[in-house]
Amino acid sequence: MGQKIIVVGGVALGPKAACRCMRLAPDSEITLFDENTHISYGGCGIPFFVSGDEDNEKDLCSTPYQTLRDPSYFRDMKGFEVKTNTRVTAIDRKAKTVTTKNLLTGEEATYPYDKLVLATGARPRPADVPGSDLENVFTLTKLEGADAVRHLMEGRKVDSAVVVGGGFIGLEAAVAMADQWGVKVSVVEMMDQVLPGVLSRTLSDMARHDLESNGVSVFTGEKVLRMEGADGKVAKVVTDKREIAAQLVIYSTGFLPNGQLAKDAGLEVTSRGAVIVNEHMQTSDPDIYAGGDCCSIKNLITNEQGYLPLGSMANRQGRVIGTNLAGGSATFKGYVGTWAVKLFKKAFCGVGLTAEIARKKGFDAIGVLVEQLDKAHFYPQHDLTALELVVEKGTKRVLGIQGSSANPDALKARIDPVAALLQHITPTVEDISTLEAAYAPPFAAAMDVINAVGNAAENVLEGRCQVLTPEEFLELWQNRDKNNYYFIDARPQKAGDALQAKQPDWHAISLEAIQTRWKEVPTDRPVAVICNTGLRSYDAVLCLARHGITNVKHSMGGMQAFLSIGGEIK
Amino acid sequence: MGQKIIVVGGVALGPKAACRCMRLAPDSEITLFDENTHISYGGCGIPFFVSGDEDNEKDLCSTPYQTLRDPSYFRDMKGFEVKTNTRVTAIDRKAKTVTTKNLLTGEEATYPYDKLVLATGARPRPADVPGSDLENVFTLTKLEGADAVRHLMEGRKVDSAVVVGGGFIGLEAAVAMADQWGVKVSVVEMMDQVLPGVLSRTLSDMARHDLESNGVSVFTGEKVLRMEGADGKVAKVVTDKREIAAQLVIYSTGFLPNGQLAKDAGLEVTSRGAVIVNEHMQTSDPDIYAGGDCCSIKNLITNEQGYLPLGSMANRQGRVIGTNLAGGSATFKGYVGTWAVKLFKKAFCGVGLTAEIARKKGFDAIGVLVEQLDKAHFYPQHDLTALELVVEKGTKRVLGIQGSSANPDALKARIDPVAALLQHITPTVEDISTLEAAYAPPFAAAMDVINAVGNAAENVLEGRCQVLTPEEFLELWQNRDKNNYYFIDARPQKAGDALQAKQPDWHAISLEAIQTRWKEVPTDRPVAVICNTGLRSYDAVLCLARHGITNVKHSMGGMQAFLSIGGEIK
Repeated sequence: MGQKIIVVGGVALGPKAACRCMRLAPDSEITLFDENTHISYGGCGIPFFVSGDEDNEKDLCSTPYQTLRDPSYFRDMKGFEVKTNTRVTAIDRKAKTVTTKNLLTGEEATYPYDKLVLATGARPRPADVPGSDLENVFTLTKLEGADAVRHLMEGRKVDSAVVVGGGFIGLEAAVAMADQWGVKVSVVEMMDQVLPGVLSRTLSDMARHDLESNGVSVFTGEKVLRMEGADGKVAKVVTDKREIAAQLVIYSTGFLPNGQLAKDAGLEVTSRGAVIVNEHMQTSDPDIYAGGDCCSIKNLITNEQGYLPLGSMANRQGRVIGTNLAGGSATFKGYVGTWAVKLFKKAFCGVGLTAEIARKKGFDAIGVLVEQLDKAHFYPQHDLTALELVVEKGTKRVLGIQGSSANPDALKARIDPVAALLQHITPTVEDISTLEAAYAPPFAAAMDVINAVGNAAENVLEGRCQVLTPEEFLELWQNRDKNNYYFIDARPQKAGDALQAKQPDWHAISLEAIQTRWKEVPTDRPVAVICNTGLRSYDAVLCLARHGITNVKHSMGGMQAFLSIGGEIK
Repeated sequence: MGQKIIVVGGVALGPKAACRCMRLAPDSEITLFDENTHISYGGCGIPFFVSGDEDNEKDLCSTPYQTLRDPSYFRDMKGFEVKTNTRVTAIDRKAKTVTTKNLLTGEEATYPYDKLVLATGARPRPADVPGSDLENVFTLTKLEGADAVRHLMEGRKVDSAVVVGGGFIGLEAAVAMADQWGVKVSVVEMMDQVLPGVLSRTLSDMARHDLESNGVSVFTGEKVLRMEGADGKVAKVVTDKREIAAQLVIYSTGFLPNGQLAKDAGLEVTSRGAVIVNEHMQTSDPDIYAGGDCCSIKNLITNEQGYLPLGSMANRQGRVIGTNLAGGSATFKGYVGTWAVKLFKKAFCGVGLTAEIARKKGFDAIGVLVEQLDKAHFYPQHDLTALELVVEKGTKRVLGIQGSSANPDALKARIDPVAALLQHITPTVEDISTLEAAYAPPFAAAMDVINAVGNAAENVLEGRCQVLTPEEFLELWQNRDKNNYYFIDARPQKAGDALQAKQPDWHAISLEAIQTRWKEVPTDRPVAVICNTGLRSYDAVLCLARHGITNVKHSMGGMQAFLSIGGEIK
């Protein structure tokens, strides 16, 4: 007979580790405990279940080949026991036993183990304001909550909803409710931007504009003070700036690792309560493994312990734990922090650090933005991709990349190669400039946007041009009576002329025309150049420089980025 | 005054190098010569111009921001001279001069240089059979030929066309003519598969099936003997197996590097005539650079000199040369061989070696195929992706990956991260199993197909299962009266039952049922299991093994791969 193995937690990592172990060591005796009724569900699918995109709740609990992952599935197909509605209440490391309590019957029991796996996951940060116990206030991380929200949507019981928290799940839920059910949704985020920590200000402004132009109100830098209700049901959300009517509130302000069981057993945990593990996913007790949302894992870019509660991470770690339970020696070295989210018309995706986070971590970092078509310009189907490469001055080290596109797949195709490099080497800007990627006109441009952003970053780092973010360009334009800037539109002449007709301070001098009209450009004023995507304006900067006009900045991503953040020339 | 620089060749690399150099060292005096009238065109767009997808020939000669790249563009905007219709006939390395001949006037001239760049490109391998001088026989690599082909298409003068050569350009041209213009197209390929050298037999059979099921005839292992005509125009193609009527023939049997000018000047060239360069893209004469389709470059996987005439390579190398002309020290380390091609409903993409090529190069290599959805299974939009990972036994080193999907972008997103790794490290199967890639349901599966193919390869390398290619499964089925195999369909019971009703040798035992019905499976016969995508059949293999039934193979990629190669159970 093989080892006795106990797994605590049955969502993503627990079943994965158990299945893997049973494949490699079929004589193992594995028992998996979960305190809930539903196990092994795709938690990341919940917003899509709410939206109605995913119609069958059971699909979230099924394998990709339509097998329901219930206890009998794991017993019959995988050869291990699953006990649901059963909480593991304590670990006795000396005796190598766990104590359990059946939440339906109250029955307690003790089970011995040779190896133990903690996959206790995370819980949503609780709503810590008055009124959070009102009916129709949800955290949307369990199927039960998703069911209730979907039911309210289908019953057309909700005119207005508030989402507290502008992170991934909050925004996905906002999109689901607004797009599919026509609900008036407001997002309230305490930080000064949506998707804080994972997007630069500019990309975040693009996300905000996508939300706002599709009817979602976004209130950033705003704190929820309380929720008020009638008949026990939520009716409004009160922030430090306004009151918002709401028949439904979704709280999604982050996750807290469920590390208490580990902590009580004397295992090492971080100050936030996340279980600390080594590369083999062992806790400070080598017979106890842990992984998934309850664990702290190493950020491979900063080399600090970090926290990334994602199903994709849990799956990879689960396989490592399963291999090691079966006597192998697999390792999980850490994470680089890939993520992705689709809003209305725009998808966002990234990896590594933003320039802001990088500076907080002590890097002298900047972000360089480009906009470019994701296919050969002569190929009929294509979308604009915005990419921002985060680089360290001096070393030219690449610390992260984030982007936006209407095409989620094409965007992922640009982010993931950089993620692969960040996992294994310390890439530099030159590695991005010369990155070899699959090319044919229906797939990419010969000088692809990913190479272009490397080139642009190098040009900025080498001091070949000075750049403006779209927000900075907008601010310069709005304050033009004070700053005395001279504005050049380097787009094809017709496009610029049309705007100049309305705005006398706007100077339409196409890139082609600059060669002959450069004398019109004043040398005693600073100059700001914009074009459609940033390519022409860079050439314009170089052209002006050849004529001795050097106090010139150009707007990264051009009018496309400018319009994507909701900018207007008026 | 800066250096005098002469660039020979004006398609992709030449202009790129010149532009880059002018940006970094604006006082350079650059002259670019090209023997053709059109310069700086997107040669890879020609099939899309033929198809009509790209309607404006000028777009192929334009920048992504709609500027025509003609000599005046380069003079006015980039600050260097371009002389078209001018051939460089000789290099005098001692005197550091080149001799030129104007092809319109016959005028000869001599120009001095400090640095010289050879960007002489490649020419199509000539049609070396009788009749190749007939009218309407093209090679489709110059805009002039593309014009003529498009004109024939638009005039509806072509009922039937033959494409000789089943490589990228040949297949793109076949698709363009059949899809957009309804021409009956036949592809004749000397090797025993289409896309030889870049796809495994199985993926190549998928490409063939995509072509054939969209009306293109594919004749592989077949040699063109001659072309015959009437009134000087081509009318038929005669192969060693048949005669094919054709009013148009496109010859695309590969490229030959234009290395003669370099060779005549005493520079080192390969036996095939490609110019040899170092990491700085310098030829054996350090004052002479070369790059693009006329050059041999290093394959970073085999460390051998190789040849990859792609516009994307030329662009990257051009930037390196431009930097070095301006006094920098950029390097181009080599290539890993990324490629991509879109046919009718399927796109194909890959990097590195196929298993067959790897074995030729001395690696003990196998290819492992999986089929899986490219998104979370509960997300409504998704496509099946087929990926084949090429790995070396023993070391578990990853040598390449190739794949197919209806979604070109999603496929590229799986290939390019592996390409990035191949450029910088010697990746192993574990690096693919644990690859961190951006995840959210609209982008990927939590355990994504790229990780799945790593896992599958590991299972095969560790001897946990024996696999069949779809072709092998088909052959076993077709010869079932001789080989005594027992066939199990592990798909959901209904799907298998429907097939079993027609085929008594087909045994529908779903994965769920195997647990109880395993006693039906004979132990004295070999067993072949198939399911929908290969996941269930792998579980079925493990389940049977737990009951002592081990002479079992499962079909990689399941019925999806089987159907994609045109397989039928009959």
